[in-house]
Amino acid sequence: MSSAKSTHIVDINLTPVAFADPPLLNAVGVHEPFAIRTIIEVVTDSGAYGLGETYGDEAHQNRLTLAADALIGTDIFDINRAREAVEAALAADATAGGHGMSGMITDSSTLDRVFSPFEVALLDLQGKILGVPVADLLGGRVRDRVDFSGYLFYKWAGHPGFPDDEWGEALDPEGIVRQAEKMIDEYGFTALKLKGGVFPPDEEAAAIEALAARFPDVPLRIDPNAAWTVETSIRVAERLDSTLEYLEDPTPGIEGMAEVRAAANMPLATNMCVVAFAQLPDAVAAGSIDVILSDHHFWGGLRRSTTLAGIAETFGMSLSMHSNSHLGISLAAMLHLAGATKNIDYACDTHWPWKNPEDDVVVGDPFSFVGGALEVPTRPGLGVELDRERLARLHQQYIDCGIRNRDDTGYMQKFDPEYRAVAPRW
Amino acid sequence: MSSAKSTHIVDINLTPVAFADPPLLNAVGVHEPFAIRTIIEVVTDSGAYGLGETYGDEAHQNRLTLAADALIGTDIFDINRAREAVEAALAADATAGGHGMSGMITDSSTLDRVFSPFEVALLDLQGKILGVPVADLLGGRVRDRVDFSGYLFYKWAGHPGFPDDEWGEALDPEGIVRQAEKMIDEYGFTALKLKGGVFPPDEEAAAIEALAARFPDVPLRIDPNAAWTVETSIRVAERLDSTLEYLEDPTPGIEGMAEVRAAANMPLATNMCVVAFAQLPDAVAAGSIDVILSDHHFWGGLRRSTTLAGIAETFGMSLSMHSNSHLGISLAAMLHLAGATKNIDYACDTHWPWKNPEDDVVVGDPFSFVGGALEVPTRPGLGVELDRERLARLHQQYIDCGIRNRDDTGYMQKFDPEYRAVAPRW
Repeated sequence: MSSAKSTHIVDINLTPVAFADPPLLNAVGVHEPFAIRTIIEVVTDSGAYGLGETYGDEAHQNRLTLAADALIGTDIFDINRAREAVEAALAADATAGGHGMSGMITDSSTLDRVFSPFEVALLDLQGKILGVPVADLLGGRVRDRVDFSGYLFYKWAGHPGFPDDEWGEALDPEGIVRQAEKMIDEYGFTALKLKGGVFPPDEEAAAIEALAARFPDVPLRIDPNAAWTVETSIRVAERLDSTLEYLEDPTPGIEGMAEVRAAANMPLATNMCVVAFAQLPDAVAAGSIDVILSDHHFWGGLRRSTTLAGIAETFGMSLSMHSNSHLGISLAAMLHLAGATKNIDYACDTHWPWKNPEDDVVVGDPFSFVGGALEVPTRPGLGVELDRERLARLHQQYIDCGIRNRDDTGYMQKFDPEYRAVAPRW
Repeated sequence: MSSAKSTHIVDINLTPVAFADPPLLNAVGVHEPFAIRTIIEVVTDSGAYGLGETYGDEAHQNRLTLAADALIGTDIFDINRAREAVEAALAADATAGGHGMSGMITDSSTLDRVFSPFEVALLDLQGKILGVPVADLLGGRVRDRVDFSGYLFYKWAGHPGFPDDEWGEALDPEGIVRQAEKMIDEYGFTALKLKGGVFPPDEEAAAIEALAARFPDVPLRIDPNAAWTVETSIRVAERLDSTLEYLEDPTPGIEGMAEVRAAANMPLATNMCVVAFAQLPDAVAAGSIDVILSDHHFWGGLRRSTTLAGIAETFGMSLSMHSNSHLGISLAAMLHLAGATKNIDYACDTHWPWKNPEDDVVVGDPFSFVGGALEVPTRPGLGVELDRERLARLHQQYIDCGIRNRDDTGYMQKFDPEYRAVAPRW
């Protein structure tokens, strides 16, 4: 940058944090009592800071440290060169794991996954220093509000050995409908997604049908996280033919998805078989995907995600947005990205309702859902500030909880030693 | 934009200009005595201005006027919404033509072609107002200097009825080698491109062989603008097998290019059969292209061109950069784009040496070639300012020259009434 502004990185703080998470069931087990994340604070020589948020697994944290060391001295406007620096820093890394997804998604690009939170922090800094919201750095808002879907989970009433949580049990269609009612009451969601892959497919199809009966005008999706065979997927797709707006990752792999797509009538979505740029050519050639659930956390950041959006538009695919358990920094980044991306054609996923409001690292409570939607922040940068007291508290929770790698399967095995994560299961 | 800055468009000036152009020969005729362009000046309520440059054909100018009217009142940070406004404004336009390419490239997207110079002007304004170069708004420089190729043309000694120009005649291998010597002497180019499609293919292959003998270390390309059949293309590709760094548009169409590619050893490049996002799926499926010659003038601007770069990287294609006869605003935009695009893998094309230095609309002489390369500007915005005296002079030249649509074929027919533009010719 040619101006007199001081825009070089002098310090980067990486802080692992943990926040309470309910016992949400999925195809590989159950959420542990705490979800872990890493908060990234990039500081310039002028004392300005930018924020990023990413996974908390140990192998990932180690790579974040390598990346952070390589970025000291970089100009915050040199995003392309910052990425090259991180690529070089990771070349020596031979460790495995650390995907932050409990084994469900392991094909994302390590460089994209590691660089993403730093890119978000650099854009936050650019926006703060220039006085423009991050959405403007991505081409400007195409919408002022972003729609989210209500993310329904089969769940236990509470973590074993602890009191029931406010959501209670949901292990059958009635429980799922009750959960949806509460979620729509509190947030106003106009679309619903059920995390499946937990019970035999016909039980989950019955839950979708119960939702359709209760909310006839609400678009519905189910995501069994590749727990079904091609044959099962096609059978369930036929049963739910007129009920789903899309079917998400019914079966593993691009080829399997292509077989399902040839037989099913509804669009097929994925955040499992296409999670990196390197997978796009095969996916396009196979014609297996209608909707990519983008996620800036593993697609290399916000700018790379807009490139993904351009690829989706060019090759005739739609976009939605994937979510992991996350805090306010990630939510702000998702809002700026979705706000500036024309072809986000479906309500985005978020785990937000499953988090205690006070469990966060940002100042105040900057997000309020109206009609299932949030406003795209218009303040400079991401539009959120770091609450250092909250950060310290969530860091202490990280230290105390002892969870160092997300392991939904291992946690389930504590209660059911015979449990195994297998895909497809049915 | 949320800050107090005044960033709304209050005025847009479109000025057609003409500048002297030598009688350069190509597959559809010969350059007329003047090249025509449109200079775009976008003015905000704070009095700041941003610059764009594009084709000068009448149908294009009419569409630019529709677009400009639709953009009044738009915030300069709302590039995505500005594009939507132009799209809506063009929906009512049913006119044909105005591609600015003398009939050689007619498949580019009208929206991308019309919106491009406005997008460049908005980025210029953003950069000026924020105090950052446009390259920083595209992710930051990955190189400080951009390599260009020396663009060789068969040509007459001068326009019929006018004195010879400083370059003199080049109608055979000796003339082309002389031209290359002069161009390398004056600009230091380290790569050379011959515009072919003018003479029988074996004469042009002989010119390439003469260049290879004279400059054994300089990468060479030939671009016959689809003047050859598939059979001829394969034969010439075999003859020049070890001589060319790439072969550009030997034959028309994606399918023809795929046939040539299956037989030829060198990479195949195009700026003719893939000139729009809509053509990419078929091109990828056919596997016909190794190198896309990007051109922000018809790929929708600088941000869309970075999306093209992401698509090229994802689908295993390389990038170079195409040029038309252009002035300093376009050159500055090309430099920022190439400076911020990692996978510009080859020296870019430019017609710059064929223009009189005093024929321009920018202040001073901000571009000086060293070793065939130019520095990426580091001043805010594009880094060029409008010289209103020069603009007035070039506008007067436009009025006086009488050329309203580029027509290389019609101009050739003045001297050779039997001449026809046919592709493939050999």
